[in-house]
Amino acid sequence: MKGTWIFNNAPLITAGGAVGGKDEKNGPLAAYFDSFFADDVTQANSYEEAEGFFLSRAAQIALNKASLSSGDIDLFIAGDLMNQITSATYTAAYLNAPYLGIFSACATVCEALAMGGLAVASGKCQKVLVGSVSHNKSAERQFRYPNEYGSQKPPTCQKTATAAGALLLADKGQGIMLESVTVGRVVDYGINDPLNMGAAMAPAAADTICKHFSQTKTSPADYDLILSGDLGKMGRELLFDLLSSQGYGPDKQRLKDCGLLLYGEQKDAFCGGSGAGCIASVLAGYLCNLLQNRVVTRILVAATGALLSPNWVKQGNTIPCISHAVSLRVGDNNA
Amino acid sequence: MKGTWIFNNAPLITAGGAVGGKDEKNGPLAAYFDSFFADDVTQANSYEEAEGFFLSRAAQIALNKASLSSGDIDLFIAGDLMNQITSATYTAAYLNAPYLGIFSACATVCEALAMGGLAVASGKCQKVLVGSVSHNKSAERQFRYPNEYGSQKPPTCQKTATAAGALLLADKGQGIMLESVTVGRVVDYGINDPLNMGAAMAPAAADTICKHFSQTKTSPADYDLILSGDLGKMGRELLFDLLSSQGYGPDKQRLKDCGLLLYGEQKDAFCGGSGAGCIASVLAGYLCNLLQNRVVTRILVAATGALLSPNWVKQGNTIPCISHAVSLRVGDNNA
Repeated sequence: MKGTWIFNNAPLITAGGAVGGKDEKNGPLAAYFDSFFADDVTQANSYEEAEGFFLSRAAQIALNKASLSSGDIDLFIAGDLMNQITSATYTAAYLNAPYLGIFSACATVCEALAMGGLAVASGKCQKVLVGSVSHNKSAERQFRYPNEYGSQKPPTCQKTATAAGALLLADKGQGIMLESVTVGRVVDYGINDPLNMGAAMAPAAADTICKHFSQTKTSPADYDLILSGDLGKMGRELLFDLLSSQGYGPDKQRLKDCGLLLYGEQKDAFCGGSGAGCIASVLAGYLCNLLQNRVVTRILVAATGALLSPNWVKQGNTIPCISHAVSLRVGDNNA
Repeated sequence: MKGTWIFNNAPLITAGGAVGGKDEKNGPLAAYFDSFFADDVTQANSYEEAEGFFLSRAAQIALNKASLSSGDIDLFIAGDLMNQITSATYTAAYLNAPYLGIFSACATVCEALAMGGLAVASGKCQKVLVGSVSHNKSAERQFRYPNEYGSQKPPTCQKTATAAGALLLADKGQGIMLESVTVGRVVDYGINDPLNMGAAMAPAAADTICKHFSQTKTSPADYDLILSGDLGKMGRELLFDLLSSQGYGPDKQRLKDCGLLLYGEQKDAFCGGSGAGCIASVLAGYLCNLLQNRVVTRILVAATGALLSPNWVKQGNTIPCISHAVSLRVGDNNA
């Protein structure tokens, strides 16, 4: 069963931290965030440094909720969108814990949960902190145009969230069960437009979600919600069509996208939110809340990453994409 | 025991692939490489694309030696030095296997072995392919200066290898035992010169190696060789001093550096080789050969990564470093 790992002794998500910026504070999920920075720079010297502040704060909040210090952590797994994942490294230095850096663009948080889940389920670690972050301003200037250009955007584009999410995985306690993960493969349908990522990523999401259903012998009806993150409006439609064509068409109301949830009808979000911090903060805040309060009891979260390299695209190549999925369930493996 | 995982049922390295360029072919380890490309571009359209060719070939060689196809692989874990780890992604697309992308600069191959070892030891995977690559020309222009400048280099600098290494981890068969891994933390001594990486990385190597000895209750005398990768001449001296000051001073003859091994006395290598493909190719070729032929029976390999971000350094910050170590031993866990 290549790609899917079912954890019979499921690792537990025992705490989460969700941090946003001012646009996230004005969005429909504001009540589920733990903390906001008042502005994009947060007293840092640069947007890139500010991004590190976001992830560090999310990590610290998750630790605080679990009444732990960073010295209690066996492992920190994180990544972000910056070249050389500087924000993750910054936070790893802050935590001073054993650290594995990863890169999977906006699919990072699910890759981190897959690896962290494995570390806990194997018994090698008791407490693993995972996290991911993105910053609108640092992402825009790295992947698209200098912020000062004020360039026009097409309606297909998405808005990179200025947000971070961190989740604490533990081998015991009260929490949400990480019952299985499905690791995706690279899928490339030939899209080369960094302003149309939803179309690029939808096939990767469909590939991983169908594999998950097949390998875990589940179907869409087994999940209260199936979440992508982040495909936006157009990508969600594509995903629905692709799943339906594979015989896994879900009840459309249950197919949600974290990028659409984060900003709702905010006009400047275009097709919806995106960025490694979008799904991470929505998961650590809103989705964990829904599960903790048993509004839903089982969800499938498929994070989608456009492994976009500006240099690679300039050299005439396309945008390879990937999606990793995690299945979360209410309960407690020691119950 | 935070950071060290001892595998009682040790995953086995059953095959490796080492690929180099023309300078590696002229180096003292040439006999241990499986394949060379005749030039830096390898019929690719760019140095960056060529880098993908190197890793793909190393991966294919490891698979061929094990008489496997990429469809037999449960998981591919890889990374490289390029922004958005494009060469690893390229190879993941070529293999079409479940893929976890990682970033740990030149420490990548040991991070991959740590994660891959966990995946195999946990029973979730039977066969995991890991790999790492670097390319001198693509690294120079991303991290330092355009190649066309022909800029002068100081004697402290190292030469990024144009090389790739891939290793196949399996749960059974004949191979080298991955008996334990030690995951490092970020160490930053305030170096900000990308032409003096050995000095930046030596403290991280010392931190991880001392932790490994302490947590596994071993000492330098328990290992036939202790290898860093890649600190170069000056970094190796610093590492020796740092280990000695912690009471773990090894027999100096047994403290080797993969960057020094790769190029020997080649003058244009300055302090020695470096790059994510240097230690990966030396490990997959030369070191695996020493173990297979029982020239040595137990070695500690501490890969060192300078998590150098050009933007981060331009913004006035320093170079955070990390080292991950793996302990390898001859034998077979099913013997």
